[in-house]
Amino acid sequence: MIIGKVVGNLWATRKDEKLNGLKFLVVKKQLNKHAYSDELIIAVDNVGAGIEDEVLITTGSSARISLNRQEVPVDMVIVGIIDKMDYIE
Amino acid sequence: MIIGKVVGNLWATRKDEKLNGLKFLVVKKQLNKHAYSDELIIAVDNVGAGIEDEVLITTGSSARISLNRQEVPVDMVIVGIIDKMDYIE
Amino acid sequence: MIIGKVVGNLWATRKDEKLNGLKFLVVKKQLNKHAYSDELIIAVDNVGAGIEDEVLITTGSSARISLNRQEVPVDMVIVGIIDKMDYIE
Amino acid sequence: MIIGKVVGNLWATRKDEKLNGLKFLVVKKQLNKHAYSDELIIAVDNVGAGIEDEVLITTGSSARISLNRQEVPVDMVIVGIIDKMDYIE
Amino acid sequence: MIIGKVVGNLWATRKDEKLNGLKFLVVKKQLNKHAYSDELIIAVDNVGAGIEDEVLITTGSSARISLNRQEVPVDMVIVGIIDKMDYIE
Repeated sequence: MIIGKVVGNLWATRKDEKLNGLKFLVVKKQLNKHAYSDELIIAVDNVGAGIEDEVLITTGSSARISLNRQEVPVDMVIVGIIDKMDYIE
Repeated sequence: MIIGKVVGNLWATRKDEKLNGLKFLVVKKQLNKHAYSDELIIAVDNVGAGIEDEVLITTGSSARISLNRQEVPVDMVIVGIIDKMDYIE
Repeated sequence: MIIGKVVGNLWATRKDEKLNGLKFLVVKKQLNKHAYSDELIIAVDNVGAGIEDEVLITTGSSARISLNRQEVPVDMVIVGIIDKMDYIE
Repeated sequence: MIIGKVVGNLWATRKDEKLNGLKFLVVKKQLNKHAYSDELIIAVDNVGAGIEDEVLITTGSSARISLNRQEVPVDMVIVGIIDKMDYIE
Repeated sequence: MIIGKVVGNLWATRKDEKLNGLKFLVVKKQLNKHAYSDELIIAVDNVGAGIEDEVLITTGSSARISLNRQEVPVDMVIVGIIDKMDYIE
């Protein structure tokens, strides 16, 4: 899984109707405690994450599994809010 | 999901017949509000997107799910047109 | 999907027998009209592509779907020959 | 598969309940014997790995298969602890 | 598919038992005839490849298909030994 920080929201009125009701969050991908990637990713929230939360993101076909309905065309889902991450640098 | 801007069209007469009827758009992958990747990607349109639209793209096996027929060999589908994206820089 | 230019052929006598009968093409991944990646990829041809053709390539599990037999261990298949690609630079 | 070194732990109280009971390890992706990537990844432990262990990681849908229950939204699982890796540089 | 050169072996006594009996080879990913990536990958051998062989590697869910048993948590399998690769530079 990858880690990131929630930095914003994305709205899309015209969308695949299978995406209705989902919340899309803008996430800055985090490389480590000191660095972020320049690339933003859009992840569906499945844990009630908010702005500035550090989150755990599952990608690919495994992301769909988090949503409990396999027929949703998403490939990145926030599956956890990080409380603490300790590591040797 | 990734974000991008629709910049053009792609035509392919000789193709896998399972792709017949699909519209292929040329998309510039967007890293954030200020930067684009040099790499173009080709995505199938599923929301009526047009040139200059900023779009949400689902990749991999999840892309097929958007098309409502699993037997299509595509790995990038436009699943939404972005109205607004707000984020803390 | 990604785009590339067919630049050569690859032969492998000793291979997984589920790959028998497939044609492996060497493809230079194209970033845009003016730039190619240094990385070569090997894709199975499903449209009769030849050297110098610009092609559309589907990757991952979706690549298998193009071949009409799911039991083939391939992850990149040429699904179309590009006639024209128009885009705003 | 990719290789990495276990460098820490990650805790997430609020998470997809399908992740309950799993242990999340912080892993530094290893490029070769002399170099690591700056990017940390989070992998679920399936072999009893500990800090400083060099490990083998399976990604994507194959990661779920390691856990013996397909309904878990994970995309990186530690499937082995490396005893030795010999290679010609 | 990607191409690489077999450069070594990897041993892991403590591993997911579904990996028992598989041979793990250390592979240097090849970008083209003149360049290699710095990143080593670990692939399961399915064709009897040996040190210095140039090989064809299938990744992701398609890699499992090569092994004829879908319940194996691997994402990179050597599916062919390259005899010859001719291409226009």
